[in-house]
Amino acid sequence: MVRAIEWVNSPDQSHLRILDQRALPAKTEYLEIDTVTELIYAIQTLAVRGAPALGAAGAYGIAVAMLEAQNKQWSETQLLTAFEQIANARPTAVNLAWGAKKAAEHYPAGFASVLQTAHDIAAADEAANRKLSKLGADWLIQKLGQRRLRAITHCNTGALATSAWGTGYGILHELHTRGLLEIVYVDETRPLLQGTRLTSWELHQDKINHVVQVDGAAASTILRGLVDFAVIGADRITANGDTANKIGSVALALACKRANIPFLVAAPYSTVDPQTATGQEIEIEERGSAEVLTVAGVDVAVAGTKTFNPAFDVTPHDLISAIVTERGVTEPGADNTPLFS
Amino acid sequence: MVRAIEWVNSPDQSHLRILDQRALPAKTEYLEIDTVTELIYAIQTLAVRGAPALGAAGAYGIAVAMLEAQNKQWSETQLLTAFEQIANARPTAVNLAWGAKKAAEHYPAGFASVLQTAHDIAAADEAANRKLSKLGADWLIQKLGQRRLRAITHCNTGALATSAWGTGYGILHELHTRGLLEIVYVDETRPLLQGTRLTSWELHQDKINHVVQVDGAAASTILRGLVDFAVIGADRITANGDTANKIGSVALALACKRANIPFLVAAPYSTVDPQTATGQEIEIEERGSAEVLTVAGVDVAVAGTKTFNPAFDVTPHDLISAIVTERGVTEPGADNTPLFS
Repeated sequence: MVRAIEWVNSPDQSHLRILDQRALPAKTEYLEIDTVTELIYAIQTLAVRGAPALGAAGAYGIAVAMLEAQNKQWSETQLLTAFEQIANARPTAVNLAWGAKKAAEHYPAGFASVLQTAHDIAAADEAANRKLSKLGADWLIQKLGQRRLRAITHCNTGALATSAWGTGYGILHELHTRGLLEIVYVDETRPLLQGTRLTSWELHQDKINHVVQVDGAAASTILRGLVDFAVIGADRITANGDTANKIGSVALALACKRANIPFLVAAPYSTVDPQTATGQEIEIEERGSAEVLTVAGVDVAVAGTKTFNPAFDVTPHDLISAIVTERGVTEPGADNTPLFS
Repeated sequence: MVRAIEWVNSPDQSHLRILDQRALPAKTEYLEIDTVTELIYAIQTLAVRGAPALGAAGAYGIAVAMLEAQNKQWSETQLLTAFEQIANARPTAVNLAWGAKKAAEHYPAGFASVLQTAHDIAAADEAANRKLSKLGADWLIQKLGQRRLRAITHCNTGALATSAWGTGYGILHELHTRGLLEIVYVDETRPLLQGTRLTSWELHQDKINHVVQVDGAAASTILRGLVDFAVIGADRITANGDTANKIGSVALALACKRANIPFLVAAPYSTVDPQTATGQEIEIEERGSAEVLTVAGVDVAVAGTKTFNPAFDVTPHDLISAIVTERGVTEPGADNTPLFS
């Protein structure tokens, strides 16, 4: 299984190794990260992405910062500022700040303790993913019966998006292992094509039958009865069960509601943010124009064209059939009472 | 105003001139068409596209075929086969076959009669567009009040998609002329980016404030309350008021329904196909993989990846607030009784 993020112990310079997802699938290149600046750039340009992977990246980032501080003789203020910068490198996924904070709590206990915390977070993420994948598959079989299912998914929620294994992708993989997956419709996921470049690549490696479609096709694929359920990941889950995920997700939820088929959100429990009451309070990252207007290096619009480029959207809880974490399956109702605390 | 399609009278070789929309906005190039093969290729590769423009293309195509038949001494069977091929070059837009058939009816009366019919179809299309644009603007003002409105649209419905003026775009232009348009959110419209390349280009020429967004953003732009209404075109309108339009359209309709804002479909009455009872019976054109997997000449997926690439989707009538044609504004209800006959 591919590893999106990994710590490399070395007598010369221990560091963080990140698979550069900007280059996939054309090239498999790794970034060897030993400065906070490099890490933040990698996070902001989506060399590493996916909420659970960002949790690990945040935690390992604290270790990177401590080694850099030692090498460059930073003041404690400089170091603590670096911790903050890592936690806030992107705003929407709760996991990044969560991972950074958890590791930073061990800073007084020293580097080894911080690194162990990061390792623990990554290991717990993998275990959570494997657990929730089984729970999600069980839930689907209970709802839809023991038959080969046709799925749709958006963005990438596989090993590349997590410490290992995958969330929504993990459920698909689990169904495939049980012989219960017929086909996956993969949204290409503009602007950065995580579906085409990453999810299709992972499905190809796992020999899972799939087709790639433009994001605009998602709703009609669902309404035409071509799939039995949809599954996506989450970058943040609020107390009432609203979820933020890659832009385009909520169209699948709206269509599933109308088609009366299950819409699943799968994420490790670390994605739950009970401090945020509803999805309306989630800060949605807005990104630059080039992602939309420059396609494979070619400008596709008149010079000076403006864009609106939110990276995420919010799916209201009443459109979600089930939120699957390693702690269990929650079925949000229509009311607005807190599900998580 | 730009002309997507125009007949050129010439003592040497009268022919059809088509603005090559595949090259826009980078290049403004014209195709000089004097064979049926060239015309069909231009239609199938979307050098000319948009349901109303295809109506004119179908009609002028009959004239092209008659001149070619004369030059190459085709048999009548060959010529009638060419008529059929033009009418069936693409399956979904009813206008193409409608325009070809209307012009072909005048074939016994001779070339001049056929050419005049094509001119009449183009002129009637422009007049219809101007009329429906006023009707649509009036309807919106009546529903939403005399205030500056924020709109969202999908694909291209402007002068480039029609003989002249535009349908959905025409309504936006009419509001702009009346000082009642604040901003247009333009879906980029994958896979061929008609929103980014064509609609944004037309809005730029008309100095109308707009932003381009990925198609996945459409539903959340609507759910976040950033727009007051949505307007799209149609490639076919069935008897019960279901409409086929560019893939991605139905996501806007689903979101508008939930947000309780108007969702308008604008088209000349020639787009109405009362022979087809419901949207489920519309043949949806499925196109090749390269449009999805090759972006600006660069392969973005693992070699051999399969796609699902429907060019259109169907919006059920109960999600449509108003169908605007030059004959008036029809508000479909939830039941399935024929609206058009």
